[in-house]
Amino acid sequence: MNRFRLVCSRCSLTLPFRYNEMKCACGGTLLVDYDVEQIARTFTKEALAARYPTMWRYKDLLPVNEPDCIVSLGEGWTPLLRMREWERKLPIRQLWIKREEQNPTGSFKSRGFSVAVSLLKEAGVTQAAVPSNGNAAGALAAYAGRAGIKAYAFIPSDCPPLIVQECVQYGARTFLVDGFIHDAAAIIEAGKEEQGWVNVGTLKEAGRVEGKKTMGLELAEQLGWKFPDVIIYPTGGGSGIIGMWKAYIELKALGWIDGPMPRFVCVQEAGCQPIVDSLAAGGQAAAQPAGVPASPTGMRVPNPPDLELILSIVEQSGGTAIALSRSEIASAVETLGAQGISASPEGAATWAGLLASCESGWLRPTDSVVLFNTSHALKYSKLASLAQLPTIRNYRDFCNYWK
Amino acid sequence: MNRFRLVCSRCSLTLPFRYNEMKCACGGTLLVDYDVEQIARTFTKEALAARYPTMWRYKDLLPVNEPDCIVSLGEGWTPLLRMREWERKLPIRQLWIKREEQNPTGSFKSRGFSVAVSLLKEAGVTQAAVPSNGNAAGALAAYAGRAGIKAYAFIPSDCPPLIVQECVQYGARTFLVDGFIHDAAAIIEAGKEEQGWVNVGTLKEAGRVEGKKTMGLELAEQLGWKFPDVIIYPTGGGSGIIGMWKAYIELKALGWIDGPMPRFVCVQEAGCQPIVDSLAAGGQAAAQPAGVPASPTGMRVPNPPDLELILSIVEQSGGTAIALSRSEIASAVETLGAQGISASPEGAATWAGLLASCESGWLRPTDSVVLFNTSHALKYSKLASLAQLPTIRNYRDFCNYWK
Repeated sequence: MNRFRLVCSRCSLTLPFRYNEMKCACGGTLLVDYDVEQIARTFTKEALAARYPTMWRYKDLLPVNEPDCIVSLGEGWTPLLRMREWERKLPIRQLWIKREEQNPTGSFKSRGFSVAVSLLKEAGVTQAAVPSNGNAAGALAAYAGRAGIKAYAFIPSDCPPLIVQECVQYGARTFLVDGFIHDAAAIIEAGKEEQGWVNVGTLKEAGRVEGKKTMGLELAEQLGWKFPDVIIYPTGGGSGIIGMWKAYIELKALGWIDGPMPRFVCVQEAGCQPIVDSLAAGGQAAAQPAGVPASPTGMRVPNPPDLELILSIVEQSGGTAIALSRSEIASAVETLGAQGISASPEGAATWAGLLASCESGWLRPTDSVVLFNTSHALKYSKLASLAQLPTIRNYRDFCNYWK
Repeated sequence: MNRFRLVCSRCSLTLPFRYNEMKCACGGTLLVDYDVEQIARTFTKEALAARYPTMWRYKDLLPVNEPDCIVSLGEGWTPLLRMREWERKLPIRQLWIKREEQNPTGSFKSRGFSVAVSLLKEAGVTQAAVPSNGNAAGALAAYAGRAGIKAYAFIPSDCPPLIVQECVQYGARTFLVDGFIHDAAAIIEAGKEEQGWVNVGTLKEAGRVEGKKTMGLELAEQLGWKFPDVIIYPTGGGSGIIGMWKAYIELKALGWIDGPMPRFVCVQEAGCQPIVDSLAAGGQAAAQPAGVPASPTGMRVPNPPDLELILSIVEQSGGTAIALSRSEIASAVETLGAQGISASPEGAATWAGLLASCESGWLRPTDSVVLFNTSHALKYSKLASLAQLPTIRNYRDFCNYWK
């Protein structure tokens, strides 16, 4: 019997596993479904405790069969940093930041692409393409480089230049697209037959959601097989939320955790807030404007591939979604920076979301909360606005500077 | 009895521990010396196996007494990546890359400053200053930010702008110095009395060497309590080599490892190669020119604070030192990038050193080798030379691009 298969998140149809089939005939998303009973025979907490700290310690719950096909660059098992001072200030029972920027490509996207590219390798694929606001493209480029697969990256032209540069550095064929991420996706779809590339965009194949699931598995393990009360997560295409929800479901099925699902809080930038708007519209997917005014970050996804699934997870969990202004996000980047944490706008948005939900009373002083810092601040440097600093020759110059 | 004291690496004088006393009256360097017999009573391999994977799992061999004073941002336990394909190509028995760029500040410098800033906190220090080619300054800035200590960074003005930017982002008072790292150090020394800052430059205090020591402890643990035959390491001030040599000595004293010391290979950039030149001069510290033509990387340290100690370690270990040209280093950055590894010039220099020592026959096909990638490539981006990429609107544009 197979260790895993596909199941539709909407109509519950089951199908044999295929790595690049994620859309059910009913319109729902096909997700990987594991035979937990079979897996539990050998996959125990004790067995796990002896394994090396990378995300592949959870390989029993990942859809790669051939160990030789695992494409790894040292991803996962990122630190979970306690923020005690702020627990007292806010107040809140426990506050943690999951430092996803410490992954090999400097962002949480390493996880999804480690699994996605492993599946490509297993399938013998030689070319892959991704539409991306940047970090996903960098991750595809790196893992494809490691695997010897040709990578194509299509990135909106206003995305951060250093993240674009990263794709080039990892050897990807990189193109700037005059448009949004869905315009980039359209180019890939248009060239699919002719170019023969596999589209590894959000919810186009099984690996990315499964890889991101390890954020949830890890979080539970790092907290002693508990989930926090609340997870605040920057949400674009939504595969992170879907992945962490799957982690909860699977750990529950294994009997490893107990208690209610963490309340998922999706943070978005005001101007591109499909989840916020849809929840406000009573959980009905709300139409988005053609052009959105938000910054070119990973949260700028006007039309997530399966908005319905994200909404149902957020509602099931008792969570919510918050839109933050550009200036709230910029101020959060600074607040975190001053505490020694290199936070991308997306990661900082979780901090802004934390402050907003404490302020509104949505977060309770008894809550334990985990924020996800998804990428390094430096990758978003605006080159024109690098700090202007004094140049000195000696201590006298230094003293003169203060006068 | 105290768990640790200071001992002079030259005259063997012992002194009670003081965090900021590193120079013996004889001119030698004072290093932290642990009471291994006492430590071994509770510090066992089994106890260690149950601990969380950060570098503070080795706290028994670190000179911080107050657990509440530990300043951590999630440093250490970076991945050790196997490079199987190259083992066959070169050939070499085993090849690994230690991915130090996955530390919280994107470089290996996180380790030293986690310990150094913890010692400052324990001592109640409120201001610290560092002369640095960049990554050390960024690390001081981040850890000082976390600890609430005021940080001053003095950086040669030609250093990579993004690393300078990082210091600002972490809230350090940052100054560009018209000169080399020793000119920056002179400014700090000149202002010591008046400003009241503590100089946390290389070998000015105990924490940085001790923190870097954890690279060696970790490496041995990750390899199953073995050292590799050869460690190739980019060498500037030399605290990494001193730290890893200490790790070897202490693990040997604990009885946890056996066998000969790894052969340490110091890589430097041609033009600023005091270790290479001194070894060539029969182990006598060779004079360096006042101005050096090398790139502004962490390896550009014309006058290491204790060259004699580095030379004695390299010689004791049966190691060597190699100067690589700027173009060999640039080509190594590309080779690693194409394999999905974001390598700084310093990290890439270890790759160039690997190729050179295979070519020369110095490395034997039976050797196991570990390279240290000390920092992320992106931090060194030259803003003016970002890739020029095509901007497209649709699939037709993409096709036209190839014509």
